[in-house]
Amino acid sequence: MVSSSIQVLGTTFSPFVNRVRIALNLKSVNFEFIEEDLSSKSDLLLRSNPVHKKVPVLIHDGKCISESLVIVQYIDENWTGNGYSILPSDPYDRSVSRFWAAYIDGKMIPLMLALTSAQEEEKVALVEKIEEGMGLLEEAFVKCSKGKSYFGGDNIGYIDIVFGSCLGWIKALEKMSGMKLLAEAKTPGLVEWVDKFLSNDVVKNVIPAPEVYIEAIKNMQSVLKKMQAETKTA
Amino acid sequence: MVSSSIQVLGTTFSPFVNRVRIALNLKSVNFEFIEEDLSSKSDLLLRSNPVHKKVPVLIHDGKCISESLVIVQYIDENWTGNGYSILPSDPYDRSVSRFWAAYIDGKMIPLMLALTSAQEEEKVALVEKIEEGMGLLEEAFVKCSKGKSYFGGDNIGYIDIVFGSCLGWIKALEKMSGMKLLAEAKTPGLVEWVDKFLSNDVVKNVIPAPEVYIEAIKNMQSVLKKMQAETKTA
Repeated sequence: MVSSSIQVLGTTFSPFVNRVRIALNLKSVNFEFIEEDLSSKSDLLLRSNPVHKKVPVLIHDGKCISESLVIVQYIDENWTGNGYSILPSDPYDRSVSRFWAAYIDGKMIPLMLALTSAQEEEKVALVEKIEEGMGLLEEAFVKCSKGKSYFGGDNIGYIDIVFGSCLGWIKALEKMSGMKLLAEAKTPGLVEWVDKFLSNDVVKNVIPAPEVYIEAIKNMQSVLKKMQAETKTA
Repeated sequence: MVSSSIQVLGTTFSPFVNRVRIALNLKSVNFEFIEEDLSSKSDLLLRSNPVHKKVPVLIHDGKCISESLVIVQYIDENWTGNGYSILPSDPYDRSVSRFWAAYIDGKMIPLMLALTSAQEEEKVALVEKIEEGMGLLEEAFVKCSKGKSYFGGDNIGYIDIVFGSCLGWIKALEKMSGMKLLAEAKTPGLVEWVDKFLSNDVVKNVIPAPEVYIEAIKNMQSVLKKMQAETKTA
């Protein structure tokens, strides 16, 4: 990808941003990462995503693309030359991938945001709902992976990126709440997948450790409440 | 498409369902439409969309696909043989289409649902927000249509389907509130587009007239409140 200008505006803390970094790593595309201060957004961010004013933004040769799921599909469709495909090739399999991506963003992430800022008495009910969703994702994993390592089979695919980007945050929530969201007994496939995903070369320097989230969550309750209000368009 | 079994589970009232019908019409794919009674969902619906239990569902040779945006992309990617493409071919143009589709579902539809069941004193503020969004969609129309009839250029494309499916409902909201959501002065491109879209052969028997929505809205406030709670996964 010589002579092409590729920048990612984001924060290393954001699962949505990390989807973009993982997708570019998978495609072996070099890029410049520009860390944004969300409490004082740069002119570049405001100019490049004027509708939502949010990270991530991918700037490719001056073209600005935002919304994490849109960017990951762009990366898949634009860099087709290296033989690595993020979405499956079969139309039905693609629809299954998109269905679960929408489920994660539409159902799981709002629940996780709620748990992140929940009062003590709300936590048990939220964890129950998250566990229910994890049960559905376990079933999806069994169907999609067909006995292999990832939702994408032998390689990391679309659902892996969308779900896997949240793992640092999920582990932090487990530690902070003292409750398991992914447990060997109920979601054995996912538990095994977590380790494989996080130790994959394209991922391991991208997803922050749970401690980073815990520290940040403690310091940033006000920012998280704002994220919660804005979830729908993330 | 002979010998293939294609069914759509839905209600003629739902914009989400009508996206699927328009997309199949565009691809000249024959299908059986199965009207669902949402107050008493069929076993077929519960079995074919066990996660959300919602319409639309496309059942293609026994494979079940749900979530309207997922289905429309499936239709585009599965029936490629007839030369008609719903999404543009260029990766960046595809990302622009997906961005505005997400904007319509994530921002505009929640506002329209809120307006549909709003108290009198909330209406002005909601209409202002909707007008603001329509202003952005006008800009998007100018950029995407490049002086032609549709967001998709000479032909109906992805944004046309996603946004256009809401037009019967939008017109009903205008009549009920006595306020313009799309006005010649502010959104001249969209006003012209509305007429072209609604009179297109693949659309004109699909989108119910505003009166149908008005009657239904009056009778179904409780159903609408439920829809509102469920918007995120529509």
